[in-house]
Amino acid sequence: MADRVVIIGAVALGPKAACRYKRLVPSAEVTMVDMSPSISYGGCGIPFYVSGDVSSPDELKTTSFHVVRDPAFFEAAKGVHVRPSTRAVSIDRQKKEVLIESLATGAQETLPYDKLVIATGSSPRALPIPGVELEGVHAISGLDEAIEIRELVQTGAVEKAVIVGAGFIGLEMAEALADMWGIDTSVVEITDQLLPGLASPHLADMARRHMEENDISFYFGEKVTALEGADGRVTRVVTDKRTLDADLVIMAAGVAPNDGLAREAGLDVHERGGIIVDDELRTSDPDIFSGGDCVVVKHLISGKPTFLPMGSMANRQGRIIGDNLAGRHKKFPGVLGSWCVKLFEHAVTGVGLTAAAAAREGFDAINVHISQLDRAHFYPEKGLMYLDLVVDRNTGKVLGLQGMSKMRDAVVGRINAVAAAMPHGITVDDLQIMEFAYSPPFSSAMDVINALGNVASNILDGMNRGLAPEEFIKRWEDKDSGEICFLDLRASADSGPVAERMDPTYWKAIPQDELPKRMDEVPRGRKLVLVCNTGARSYEAQVMLDAAGLTDTENLQGGVATARMLGIEP
Amino acid sequence: MADRVVIIGAVALGPKAACRYKRLVPSAEVTMVDMSPSISYGGCGIPFYVSGDVSSPDELKTTSFHVVRDPAFFEAAKGVHVRPSTRAVSIDRQKKEVLIESLATGAQETLPYDKLVIATGSSPRALPIPGVELEGVHAISGLDEAIEIRELVQTGAVEKAVIVGAGFIGLEMAEALADMWGIDTSVVEITDQLLPGLASPHLADMARRHMEENDISFYFGEKVTALEGADGRVTRVVTDKRTLDADLVIMAAGVAPNDGLAREAGLDVHERGGIIVDDELRTSDPDIFSGGDCVVVKHLISGKPTFLPMGSMANRQGRIIGDNLAGRHKKFPGVLGSWCVKLFEHAVTGVGLTAAAAAREGFDAINVHISQLDRAHFYPEKGLMYLDLVVDRNTGKVLGLQGMSKMRDAVVGRINAVAAAMPHGITVDDLQIMEFAYSPPFSSAMDVINALGNVASNILDGMNRGLAPEEFIKRWEDKDSGEICFLDLRASADSGPVAERMDPTYWKAIPQDELPKRMDEVPRGRKLVLVCNTGARSYEAQVMLDAAGLTDTENLQGGVATARMLGIEP
Repeated sequence: MADRVVIIGAVALGPKAACRYKRLVPSAEVTMVDMSPSISYGGCGIPFYVSGDVSSPDELKTTSFHVVRDPAFFEAAKGVHVRPSTRAVSIDRQKKEVLIESLATGAQETLPYDKLVIATGSSPRALPIPGVELEGVHAISGLDEAIEIRELVQTGAVEKAVIVGAGFIGLEMAEALADMWGIDTSVVEITDQLLPGLASPHLADMARRHMEENDISFYFGEKVTALEGADGRVTRVVTDKRTLDADLVIMAAGVAPNDGLAREAGLDVHERGGIIVDDELRTSDPDIFSGGDCVVVKHLISGKPTFLPMGSMANRQGRIIGDNLAGRHKKFPGVLGSWCVKLFEHAVTGVGLTAAAAAREGFDAINVHISQLDRAHFYPEKGLMYLDLVVDRNTGKVLGLQGMSKMRDAVVGRINAVAAAMPHGITVDDLQIMEFAYSPPFSSAMDVINALGNVASNILDGMNRGLAPEEFIKRWEDKDSGEICFLDLRASADSGPVAERMDPTYWKAIPQDELPKRMDEVPRGRKLVLVCNTGARSYEAQVMLDAAGLTDTENLQGGVATARMLGIEP
Repeated sequence: MADRVVIIGAVALGPKAACRYKRLVPSAEVTMVDMSPSISYGGCGIPFYVSGDVSSPDELKTTSFHVVRDPAFFEAAKGVHVRPSTRAVSIDRQKKEVLIESLATGAQETLPYDKLVIATGSSPRALPIPGVELEGVHAISGLDEAIEIRELVQTGAVEKAVIVGAGFIGLEMAEALADMWGIDTSVVEITDQLLPGLASPHLADMARRHMEENDISFYFGEKVTALEGADGRVTRVVTDKRTLDADLVIMAAGVAPNDGLAREAGLDVHERGGIIVDDELRTSDPDIFSGGDCVVVKHLISGKPTFLPMGSMANRQGRIIGDNLAGRHKKFPGVLGSWCVKLFEHAVTGVGLTAAAAAREGFDAINVHISQLDRAHFYPEKGLMYLDLVVDRNTGKVLGLQGMSKMRDAVVGRINAVAAAMPHGITVDDLQIMEFAYSPPFSSAMDVINALGNVASNILDGMNRGLAPEEFIKRWEDKDSGEICFLDLRASADSGPVAERMDPTYWKAIPQDELPKRMDEVPRGRKLVLVCNTGARSYEAQVMLDAAGLTDTENLQGGVATARMLGIEP
């Protein structure tokens, strides 16, 4: 038991740890210190405050039942002391004291502790470019900054906005500005896709197209080199390829862990940043705990330390720290990195590793893509789900999954289900028999995740030789080479009209159910790219063609449903 | 490898097994036999055809892309022979032959097999009462019956309908008749709740109230003793308590496995019905497989044989049988019994055992109830989720979970996530740290399932002494006894107006954040029932009261949010 607990940082993990510990040991003295006057707010809600979905910043500071979580609330309702607008200057681990300083008065003071929690979070990465100090340039660093942005946009002062970075916050801010306030919004991203490191290239491309349809412009593979202004206000964003006019610039190029205080106190810190903690969230000093955005945690698939700045992880870890402050030994074994983001009509979501990330981690990984309706095809309200499964070729182990759909809660629900099983080391076999609650208004008799497992199993077996969507685009561009023929297996109502407008030198329609009788019409001596609505009939055809000795075939994963989302409409 | 495979039954499992096996062994002869002229239809869609959500019965017989799955389709597209309108009379296991009979001509024939699949499904349970043969009395036994019902209702011939049985099909049919066709609809159920054996008593009660608001009448604990009619048409339903007028009666008192053919062939059949199969879905004859509605399978929580007539299980098992016909050794380890049903605005859903079922299976089970918003409280579109977790008191093992919410896909998604982890033997600790994709439009930073795990942990620890909603109702009825005081911990804006209209002899309002200062106002010498919005502040208060030595307290699980759903509005 610790009589005196000091917690540095009072946004997500700090309050959770403080309140949990105080409930376990009501007699303890628990003090939270925070630099900001605002504590315990829902930082992840900032884009929704800027958009206007959330009308007042107070809503981000209240409980579900409209009680403001301010220092007086923590004192009265939780028995936890709060020192807002106060900076932790340094930690003296020998004396077990934290030196703090009032930001209002500059007065310094030492707080003795038995146990200390470092919950300093993360800060937006600052780009080393000229002009970041101009007015109208904002990072999403806290509520005060959010209030400034909202005031700017709701006065109509902003016509053009540029967002630097196409991660979650950048994309959510882009939607907020364009959708609600009609601002001409562009996103500049240094990598070649949105949600870099998170979404597969083709899901990222689908999401980009959807955002472009909603009037967001994207500039990928461009580096911002300077921000320029007039009279101290930003007016232009300069990249290595162009100049964009802007009267609002949002810097959303990622965040970095606030590990300086821990580093200066001599605690172990990862070489790429982030305090190192064990599976009970103890730092290298057994009297100091840490968690949330300022630490690295074990990735349950790669086994490597990973940085996961997510309010959800911080909350779960906060409770664990509260328990362990009280002498319990609760474990936080690691993370899978589940994520989701609403982009206009669609949800884009994922868990674990992308195929590219898995390859970097040394896995022989394959990516399995499908498109399929998310519930019974005869039920009126339904939507296609686009899924990418990442699997280890040798073991069939599930390494990651990403999805996109207009049925937003449904696709996030599927990711959560697979994520719930992934810590147990599941394989493709497990996906095939995974049990989903079934009724036509919610799912198909063969759930989309079971179907994904089936397709993955067929691919691992070599029965289904799939063509990745991005490879299909290359084949399509190469269609006049004389080396490829596209074989359209859709029913004649679908494939007939297409065949009429296609060049017969590279396009042939034979409905799959007519294939056995029309096998002699199948073009010989060329690679056949098999196409149907979603990839199921073309797989059936591939099996039939194999049996007939025609094995140089590729089956478009996700079929025309996927091709269409990528801007190709065969 | 089996050259000749015969499959008896061609609705869900049969076609799946046939097509999978044919893809694995294209040279095989596969024949499906079915009594009906309609095969491979989506039987679970029948209530939605009756409601009009599905406009034509053909939609239940087509693929996602409008291809009709009739015998010609199976022959052409799948290479599978179909014998519709044909009855399997008997199985000669020595000769490895099935005797079949054409229902049109009466002609008999023997089909030799190397491997046989029994996929005979289930049939509606027939009640041994007079009048079931009257016109206007229907079971949901197949498409033809559904077409008759739809024709009846859409001509306006039905004013009053009575449904016998409050399981999935009964409730879905009730909604279909009342919502779309405005028919005065009653449900008679022999047990004391809807979804008996599936939903907790209080979730069932919430669902009943919601359906009553939508003009469905319920008669629980009543046994139908006769159906009466005039001129051969039904006019009344007689129960042991009353007589109800009816010009349409739907018999939905459950289904029973069609295991007669297997039993007569000498295969092992469970004493309560259902063919016994091993984990590769082989019957007691290694050349005969079975699955779907006609078998019993292992329940993964109870370990007992269970009967689970679900199209989803049949589909998953069909593929496994297809694999194992080809000499693979794919396993179907068992089921958790996941389920979901849409009832007007709400989804009701669950997995595993209810507390009552767990007790019957010998577990020392506790039920943990919470109500909580399903996503960030500041996000505009959100809804309360009502959840019941069933946990083994000794081990903390998760035995079951049920939920209800207007955020339908979201609550089903949560059930699916927990279900995905349950085969791995998870405990309350796992729920607390389970990773859910987080963003305010989808979830809370502490997901509702994490919160449920936290509450369960507190209850197992004895820190949170919860009062089940149905016990709260008893306390409320007992409020004038002088032995109880309700202590309302809500913020004064919520609790103040309530206190003004309540009798101060049993009702006292002290906002939780004022409790430490007003501890002397807490009534002594009586049991305190602690009440807040959802059970969180009242738990906080319970901890504070414990620390002050006031330990005779009970904390209303789910708070006023749950009480309100049960018709009590303190």
